[in-house]
Amino acid sequence: MKLSEEMLAQYDRDGFIAAPGVFSQAELASIKTALAEDVTVKGPHLITEDDGETMRAVYASHTRHPLFRDLVTSERLLGPAVQLVGRDLYVHQFKINTKRPFGGESWAWHQDYPVWRDADRMPEARAVNVAVFLDDVSEFNGPVVFLRGSHRLGSGTSRRRQGGETAEHIDPRDYTLSGDDLSRLAGVHEMTSPKGAAGTVVFFHPEIVHGSAPNISPYPRDLLITTYNSSSNAPRPPGEPRPEYLVGRDTTPLVPHARLLETMAATTTGAGA
Amino acid sequence: MKLSEEMLAQYDRDGFIAAPGVFSQAELASIKTALAEDVTVKGPHLITEDDGETMRAVYASHTRHPLFRDLVTSERLLGPAVQLVGRDLYVHQFKINTKRPFGGESWAWHQDYPVWRDADRMPEARAVNVAVFLDDVSEFNGPVVFLRGSHRLGSGTSRRRQGGETAEHIDPRDYTLSGDDLSRLAGVHEMTSPKGAAGTVVFFHPEIVHGSAPNISPYPRDLLITTYNSSSNAPRPPGEPRPEYLVGRDTTPLVPHARLLETMAATTTGAGA
Repeated sequence: MKLSEEMLAQYDRDGFIAAPGVFSQAELASIKTALAEDVTVKGPHLITEDDGETMRAVYASHTRHPLFRDLVTSERLLGPAVQLVGRDLYVHQFKINTKRPFGGESWAWHQDYPVWRDADRMPEARAVNVAVFLDDVSEFNGPVVFLRGSHRLGSGTSRRRQGGETAEHIDPRDYTLSGDDLSRLAGVHEMTSPKGAAGTVVFFHPEIVHGSAPNISPYPRDLLITTYNSSSNAPRPPGEPRPEYLVGRDTTPLVPHARLLETMAATTTGAGA
Repeated sequence: MKLSEEMLAQYDRDGFIAAPGVFSQAELASIKTALAEDVTVKGPHLITEDDGETMRAVYASHTRHPLFRDLVTSERLLGPAVQLVGRDLYVHQFKINTKRPFGGESWAWHQDYPVWRDADRMPEARAVNVAVFLDDVSEFNGPVVFLRGSHRLGSGTSRRRQGGETAEHIDPRDYTLSGDDLSRLAGVHEMTSPKGAAGTVVFFHPEIVHGSAPNISPYPRDLLITTYNSSSNAPRPPGEPRPEYLVGRDTTPLVPHARLLETMAATTTGAGA
């Protein structure tokens, strides 16, 4: 997939772009199957809601399951990422946010880069988030909401809140913007929310302000987010780095392929092994 | 205001209709002022969120504040209500749901009539809810979501849940539909959510399934809902009725007037007296 000049300009202006129909129904079914397989592997990479039971997110599936390993090197994700950030990209972070029907919780308003800046000493925001809709996304199942163009403000004002309470993965609530800041920003930067069918891909900037509401609908909202970072922009932790499921260690530039994921899934036997 | 034949047919089919621009900016400002005055009157008619502090709803303002007394007899609300339900209407219940920015909570999926049937022995669903948008309503500040046409199913399956925990006002969570029921209903009845500028009025059926998400936006979402019931359909409690702020005692048919609310506000002196 190649982004048009118009889409590149739109990304610069708005901080995000959406491309519909990137993955087929068959591929999405394979991804869902692979997700179901991967979450049988227990560990700290599985994040639950406050109830301690409902799954909120799973990290680093690309290090455990062959389908996700192939997904992150798919030309359809990696190609546009290279156009947006530059060549020599690797996976800084991989997560699937699994927002359940009837109560999957909100994600606080935040910017992504300040977390990686503070926790991992990532030098610059030369990275991009690539979000794949694994479910149809409507206004009713807790879509991501962006403040259009807010990435252009940088992220100098975002910092970890006193009393941040979440574990090493650092939930956005620990970096949430103040109500005053948000009210001011929302007066300038329109709230907007890309919707679309499963298979849509949204590329968004690590400094765009975003959040999402709980899911009150009967429909799940699984969102797969790969963060590609420049190899030359790898974190330089001052001491012990965060675990590998949060901060990719292998900064070797990825090589894209053009294979279909459904083919891959058909050859997958050892689930999550 | 007079509803067209087309709007009446739409109400029968969908269970709701929306009319934009019913109240002017000046009138809305007067209503907001009156609300601020009325909530200074403390009592059980003020409902808070689970934090025990943030206001969630206020009941029966029309019994305390002259502006709201005038609002419920305004021809603009009462006229269409008579068209939808028939003549000889009175106020069964009046509430303002005050959904705060950054966290005003959800309202569970429910139907209204079963509560009045069970708690108050209201004989039939010959009533109508008239909701006035006191703020602009967008997809971002927790709009009411309807299952289009679900009022036509009746409400035979809705009943109070075991362990219902809320006080006499009976929060919808105590009457929420099961996930299975909702999944089934949402497969047949489209989820839809009227939006619009402050001053929009939505008329909706007491048996339509509806709910709303929390408000994650910087914008409030105050929604004023008057339930008009037929005098001939007044509750017939078997014992002690619920308090008057929840169940209107005066079933005398209301007489509509065509006055502007801003005029009224200007003559209002004794706030909440």
